[in-house]
Parts: sequence; C-alpha cells; structure tokens
Amino acid sequence: MRFATYKAEGDTFYGAVTDAGAIALSPDFPQWPGLFDVVAQGGLDALVQAARGRPVTHDQITYEMVLPDARRILCVGVNFPDRNAEYKDGSAQPRFMSLFPRFASGFTGHDRPLIRPPESHALDYEGEVAIVIGKAGRRIAAKDAYDHIAAVTICNEGTIRDWVRHAKFNVTQGKNWDRSGAMGPWLVPFTDPAQLDGACIKTRVNGELRQDDRLARMIFPIREQIAYISTFMALQPGDIIVTGTPTGAGARFEPPRYLVPGDVVEVEVNGIGTLRNTVADEVS
Amino acid sequence: MRFATYKAEGDTFYGAVTDAGAIALSPDFPQWPGLFDVVAQGGLDALVQAARGRPVTHDQITYEMVLPDARRILCVGVNFPDRNAEYKDGSAQPRFMSLFPRFASGFTGHDRPLIRPPESHALDYEGEVAIVIGKAGRRIAAKDAYDHIAAVTICNEGTIRDWVRHAKFNVTQGKNWDRSGAMGPWLVPFTDPAQLDGACIKTRVNGELRQDDRLARMIFPIREQIAYISTFMALQPGDIIVTGTPTGAGARFEPPRYLVPGDVVEVEVNGIGTLRNTVADEVS
Repeated sequence: MRFATYKAEGDTFYGAVTDAGAIALSPDFPQWPGLFDVVAQGGLDALVQAARGRPVTHDQITYEMVLPDARRILCVGVNFPDRNAEYKDGSAQPRFMSLFPRFASGFTGHDRPLIRPPESHALDYEGEVAIVIGKAGRRIAAKDAYDHIAAVTICNEGTIRDWVRHAKFNVTQGKNWDRSGAMGPWLVPFTDPAQLDGACIKTRVNGELRQDDRLARMIFPIREQIAYISTFMALQPGDIIVTGTPTGAGARFEPPRYLVPGDVVEVEVNGIGTLRNTVADEVS
Repeated sequence: MRFATYKAEGDTFYGAVTDAGAIALSPDFPQWPGLFDVVAQGGLDALVQAARGRPVTHDQITYEMVLPDARRILCVGVNFPDRNAEYKDGSAQPRFMSLFPRFASGFTGHDRPLIRPPESHALDYEGEVAIVIGKAGRRIAAKDAYDHIAAVTICNEGTIRDWVRHAKFNVTQGKNWDRSGAMGPWLVPFTDPAQLDGACIKTRVNGELRQDDRLARMIFPIREQIAYISTFMALQPGDIIVTGTPTGAGARFEPPRYLVPGDVVEVEVNGIGTLRNTVADEVS
C-alpha cells in the first residue's frame, strides 16, 4: 500500500495510490488535515484499512512533497564507502555521522520540476532513502530502532553545490533552496526490516546510471542513526530522517556534471518505487 | 506590549504580559490555536487591540518557549567582531554568513531550566536577539528587510559545545539538544528600526557580565541576513532568525567555563527585556 499527498480537481488530498490512480482518503479523516497528521497521530493503519477495496477517485493527480507539513527533517551526510574519500581532504573517516536539517520547503513532489535558480547553476542530485518516524523515543537502542519507523519513502536530496561552501561552517544554504529537491512519490508503510536492509538506491540522469549502492553498505546504518539522533533530541512521530547518498553525485565528476533544464533524474529504490523529476530554470 | 505563550491553571494560553500578570487572549481567538498561528496569519495587531485596558487574568504563569510551533528557525553564526578570531584557525573573515537551523524542541521558556544532559557537561550559553518574520518575501532587498519583521524576542542559543564538532561538517548535534536553549520571555511587536539598530546584548552568568555588545557592530547586519536568506528560501510569516551572539561564551575562556547546575543565565536586551534561565541536570 502506498500513500501520497496530491492535487486533483483544484484541491489537495491524501490517499492511496494504485497503478490506476488515487483513492482519496482525506475526506474520510477530517481529524487529520494532512498526511503528516496521519503519521503524527498514528493513523497509517487506519488508512490501510480504509483503502481496501475502494475504487479509484482520481485518475489524474499532481504529486506534492509527500509530507508537506513535516517539521523536522534531518539528513545524514557522507554515509557510504568512498563518499568520505570523494572530499579529497585527506581526513580520516569521521567517528560520528554528519547531520544537517532541511526544511520541507526545499522539496517538491514526484513528477514536478527541480528548480535551478538564477544565482547558481550548480544544481546536483543525491538519491536517498528517507524514513518517517512513527513512535516517539529518546535514547532509543539501535536494536529497537526499527520499531520507531512508520514508513519509508525516497528523497532526491537536491543541492546547490557551490552554496554548500559559502560559509565557515555548515551546508545550510546549499541544502535549503526552495524546491531544489524532491520527496516521494509516496509513503510505503514499514512492516519488514528487509524493506531497508535489502534496499538498493539507483540514481539515473537521462537514463544513465550515476549512483548504485545498497543500504547494507552504509557507514552509519539506519538503526544507528535513530539511536544517535535520539540521544540529543526525542524523536517524534512525523520526523523524517534522510539516510545518506551513495557515491556518484554530479559534483564528483571531473569536470562536475551538474543538472541542466530538461534533465530527468530518477531515484529508484526496490520495494518503494521510483521518484522522477525533471529540471527547470526558475521562472520569476 | 509583550506577548507570551504560557501555562496557567493546567492549560496553555497566549496573551499579553504586564508587570502584574498575564491577560489571556487565546480564548478570544480560537482561529489561532497558538501564538505562532497569530504571527503566521498576521494577527499581532489584533492582539494589541484586544489587550488594551483588559484586566489581568493570570497572576501566576509558567512561560513556554515563545513560539513552540515554530517550524523554521535559522541561526546566524560567527557574526560579531572577534568571534571569527575566537576560532583561532587562522581563517580570514568569511565572505558569507554561517547559518544553521535549530528545531523548536531545542528551546525552553523563560524562567525554566536549561537542561544539561548526562552525555556531556559542556553546556554553554549564547545571548542573542531573535526576529520573527511577519511578511513573506523572496529575494528581499536589504533596504526593505525591516518591513518583513513582525516582532523581536531574546534567545539563549544554548549549545552542547563538544557535540558541535562531532562530525565532518555542521554543528547540528550540538545545537539541537532538547531544551538546551531558551527563547522569550515574550514577543515585542517590531515598530521602529531603533528596536534593533539601538539594541545591546548583555549576558550574565550568576550576575557576572560575560557578553556585552551592540547589534550595530554585527558583521552581517539583520537587514543583510534577511536579504541573503530570502535569496535561497522564501521567508514566511512565523519564521525565526536568531541573529548572532557576541564574543564571550564559556567555551572561549581558558579553561572553558561551562554552565553547571544552579547557574543563572540572564540575557538582557534593552527594549525587549531579560530572558532568565537556571541550569539543571536532566532528570530521567
């Protein structure tokens, strides 16, 4: 079962997505205005039940960022073998994971354009798996971490590469351009550890494979991410962790291969689906 | 006029704060569940009108973080003369400002304890002025920037200093410990440029002056912060910018003077008030 936020007939809905179209569920759950509220209130199971056997409501939909009201999105950096070496700064593998927040405004939905701004043409892709927390916890033990995940989705953690290095510290600027990334197409409820442990990320640009790796090869596995993050902040339902990108972003080529208008970026994760976005210049 | 979020008689309110107590206003505005919604919907003027001449409702209140529902809080780092030199890394003054997000969960309210966790005793203070955006905008010109501010408040941008350097990049971990900082006591509507241009920050620990500087000496003035940030993300009403701390945090002493339980930290800003917090060890 897959759940998306989408526009249809001029309104915004959330619902189940099938190959034939979408089954609007938000009209049945006025207590949960958005899919974020569903997750935050532990309502995904109710959605699964409500969607069973129902006919398609909308056959033409426009996807939104999957949880547009998400309040806390934490991204894990430098988390696959060879990624640290890509920085070519001679530094040893870091002992702790690198983390940076992104605001929901930095992401668009599936099948909608990633925006290249006039200030920089160094728009780059990063294919990743994102997890959505479903159960609160502080100082969660790694062995219990998966119990706190409600759903999984896909992220293109699009980056304005030169703005990542604008300042003395932190990547904030380059990671928070409006609609420079995407998240979706949908949430898939998390029911089996194999959904993560057996997942592979493949990122293609215009059909050419650029990133290809397995989550099992992460330097800081997702269980450890949940344990570490929940040490300093209590995780809450609706929190999102974007778990890290494999080697092969455009910045790592010589010369760099940044995205240009018309490019099609696809991030495929087995068991979740394919997040597809074109690239467009910002229209003022 | 000053507006706070507070608890009284077991409920949470927002209202106007006077020397005699608080005037509950949230019961009059059910369309705005929190003070964040008031600001986001442009309702501060309505609150000013509603508070006039009304008697005190609560004489005993417990302050909350002033905008507990704030979704986007951006902090400016290394923004006063001598602050860059404090890093002693021989680097030139950076050309662009350093920015990092903090989640609302990292802040408590006035007169409530800053929490020192068991994992680290390197809890440090940073006195700052925070501004709250009242009018949306993208690529705002510096000369127009003040038109986008709804209110000002005070922040103790409390930091777990050693966790700031856990990873290869970014200060995320050290800046997002639950209730390691504070914001408040209240919002003061922004009506006059002198509220910022003439403001001084004085931070005291147990009465000893540790930070003392004027906003007019900022490397990246608030007008430029708004212009720069709005280049990459459209600012929205309710966004908060924490504008930078003067030299003199505990980490800058030899040896460092970190906060210990029982310490009283006061951040005073003329025209806004004094944000006061004690320090307490986390109780599990």
